[in-house]
Amino acid sequence: MPDAVELIRAKRDGGQLTDADIRWLIRGYTGGEIPDEQMSALLMAIYFRGLDTAELSAWTDAMISSGERLGLAGLTAPTVDKHSTGGVGDKVSLVLAPLVASCGAMVPQLSGRGLGHTGGTLDKLESIPGWRASLSNAEIVTVLGQVGCVICAAGAGLAPADRKLYALRDVTGTVESIPLIASSIMSKKIAEGTGSLVLDVKVGSGAFMRDIDSARQLARTMVDLGDAHGVRTSALLTAMDTPLGHAVGNAVEVEEAVATLCNAGPADLVEVTLALATEMLQLAGLDADPKAALEDGRAMAAYRAMIRAQGGDPDASLPTAAHTDIVTAPSSGYLQQLDALAVGTAAWRLGAGRARKEHPVSAAAGVICLAKPGDAVAAGQPLLELRTDDAGRLDRARAALAGAFCVGPVPPPPADPVIERIT
Amino acid sequence: MPDAVELIRAKRDGGQLTDADIRWLIRGYTGGEIPDEQMSALLMAIYFRGLDTAELSAWTDAMISSGERLGLAGLTAPTVDKHSTGGVGDKVSLVLAPLVASCGAMVPQLSGRGLGHTGGTLDKLESIPGWRASLSNAEIVTVLGQVGCVICAAGAGLAPADRKLYALRDVTGTVESIPLIASSIMSKKIAEGTGSLVLDVKVGSGAFMRDIDSARQLARTMVDLGDAHGVRTSALLTAMDTPLGHAVGNAVEVEEAVATLCNAGPADLVEVTLALATEMLQLAGLDADPKAALEDGRAMAAYRAMIRAQGGDPDASLPTAAHTDIVTAPSSGYLQQLDALAVGTAAWRLGAGRARKEHPVSAAAGVICLAKPGDAVAAGQPLLELRTDDAGRLDRARAALAGAFCVGPVPPPPADPVIERIT
Repeated sequence: MPDAVELIRAKRDGGQLTDADIRWLIRGYTGGEIPDEQMSALLMAIYFRGLDTAELSAWTDAMISSGERLGLAGLTAPTVDKHSTGGVGDKVSLVLAPLVASCGAMVPQLSGRGLGHTGGTLDKLESIPGWRASLSNAEIVTVLGQVGCVICAAGAGLAPADRKLYALRDVTGTVESIPLIASSIMSKKIAEGTGSLVLDVKVGSGAFMRDIDSARQLARTMVDLGDAHGVRTSALLTAMDTPLGHAVGNAVEVEEAVATLCNAGPADLVEVTLALATEMLQLAGLDADPKAALEDGRAMAAYRAMIRAQGGDPDASLPTAAHTDIVTAPSSGYLQQLDALAVGTAAWRLGAGRARKEHPVSAAAGVICLAKPGDAVAAGQPLLELRTDDAGRLDRARAALAGAFCVGPVPPPPADPVIERIT
Repeated sequence: MPDAVELIRAKRDGGQLTDADIRWLIRGYTGGEIPDEQMSALLMAIYFRGLDTAELSAWTDAMISSGERLGLAGLTAPTVDKHSTGGVGDKVSLVLAPLVASCGAMVPQLSGRGLGHTGGTLDKLESIPGWRASLSNAEIVTVLGQVGCVICAAGAGLAPADRKLYALRDVTGTVESIPLIASSIMSKKIAEGTGSLVLDVKVGSGAFMRDIDSARQLARTMVDLGDAHGVRTSALLTAMDTPLGHAVGNAVEVEEAVATLCNAGPADLVEVTLALATEMLQLAGLDADPKAALEDGRAMAAYRAMIRAQGGDPDASLPTAAHTDIVTAPSSGYLQQLDALAVGTAAWRLGAGRARKEHPVSAAAGVICLAKPGDAVAAGQPLLELRTDDAGRLDRARAALAGAFCVGPVPPPPADPVIERIT
């Protein structure tokens, strides 16, 4: 039988762990025989030494084997999912899943909640009265068959090893490791059973990957891992220097997603969403025009059906915030930048995100970006609207925005939100 | 207040921890507010990133401050201690402490038990009927005053943070870090309150430090740390490619130490012991001739007084093993080498060492090296005698010795057991 200390030392010293070693480690940790302190030391050694292709594949397999697989084989259309590494104002899933479903694919979008600047996709949708994030496996298959898409919580049965490992990484400074990030994401997506997968790897101040090289490396690692496990996988690197769209929060992002489904969405959000939809349909082998499906209302119909199928009322009004505040332009000119991290932090301080996993998020809190980089603004013109249930939060949110934007005499060069495609 | 995850990430990314950060970490870990999994991740990050001089000093101070200091200021002679990083057949302390005491210094040798191939110095002395390793602080001072030396267990009150950290390092693959080793050793020696300290840093297959560069770096780190904390410190690097002396075990090493005190000791053991004694007396500012004190019986008198003061009978016969076995020379010639690690492993398998902290050691088990490298041997001549209480252990002990020695046509070049002095 392997010895945990010997395996930690082997990885620490740059050695390679065997398939059997990795299976033993993941099974032992999930079962509680390997204690947290040994796994966290191993994770830190992996942070420094990495995992090679064979180790990463074995690590991912072991996490998949720790739980069940969702049975999607009986569905009548090709399945295709999207995963985003997370960004500020990223409400793409709310538009994309029904859009791709309306083009003939089936989109099983199982999500976690995470600890972002705002809530995750599930938290956003929970601002819709009656909407349920938790579905049984049978319900997931039923909704997919009826509507063509489902956005719901990944059940506890899917890759439970990842759940335990992620909680440990979160408190031990071992989150930022490309193989650990890749195996965490891909184990859940492979266990979910989707036939194809498109990864939206965000790059920039508001993203997990701050620079293009790390983003490329993460995308390449995940694409290879998916392909090796029989999931057709590709990735788009998309910009996250400034928030996507105008709304940053939970209910406010649902409203912007609905506006986008009504053909009144912001240009960057529409562009990213259509690029991802095109990629997903191509991987799924479907010859369909997502732009048409968005414009002619088919995507909106699928969205309404999806919300209803999960108990929500798509016509209900959403929670509004008790307090608002405005940040204005300091001078006239063109907005040069609007930093995603600063806006995300402000939204978080207003109550839109959680500090700990067990905390609730405020549905109504958030930030509305009234101007975007490149827009002409006049001195004193409103740039940002802060919304919160608790007026006491406004000062610290405003403080987060110091230095977040600047106004200059000429427009900044236009930036394409879709940077690169990796297959 | 600092945040543990942020400090782990800072060290992981090559940053420097402040004095206050380090105090907070050590105090929080000792007090149980910082859990094992966070400390083990930090220790692994320190393994990769190291600690700079200021961090190492703060880390050591924080460990000292976690407990009490022994009050040796009232003693009438200069105090001087020795610490060995551990080797196979290392019974130096048993001869050295009484020898240096007989030259006029006071030697407060407080030891741990460790997990070596044989027991530590305390385990060796415990093979003497009646001898007690555990003394109160008051007893330590009394024995020192009466006899001039004491070898006993470091009490739980001395650097308790180190005790907890060492136990964690032992199970998380974070033992082999020079700053962590240096702070562990030096925090206890500084808290002990010795005025001077000589470090015996062993180098070679049977030592913790396998190569001269690591040994030099560890010695330099500890010497600087001692000097910075007001303890006059120097180090000798000594060879540990082959066992020191002939006996490897517990009772057998006591017997060899007694023989050495009777002027019938092996040359390498005598040489290393006298070199360390000379160094200790010089640091203590005493002008005395340790060779004379060994030869004229003063050292032996001090040894007998020390054993008696701690309840032991220096004339009692020691435990003997129920089973013995002989390994013979495969051909005639000169013994080229006799690998310390292999002999240590064989002794450990015979029962002389412990696999876990809570296990007892066998007093009688061990290996007697009947020839040393350089000796002329004849085919079939006994080379090693294996001793154990459990005949079932002999096969695995013999297996450890495969490849441990070789016989060649010409004598190997002579090797000096004392390699280098670092001050």
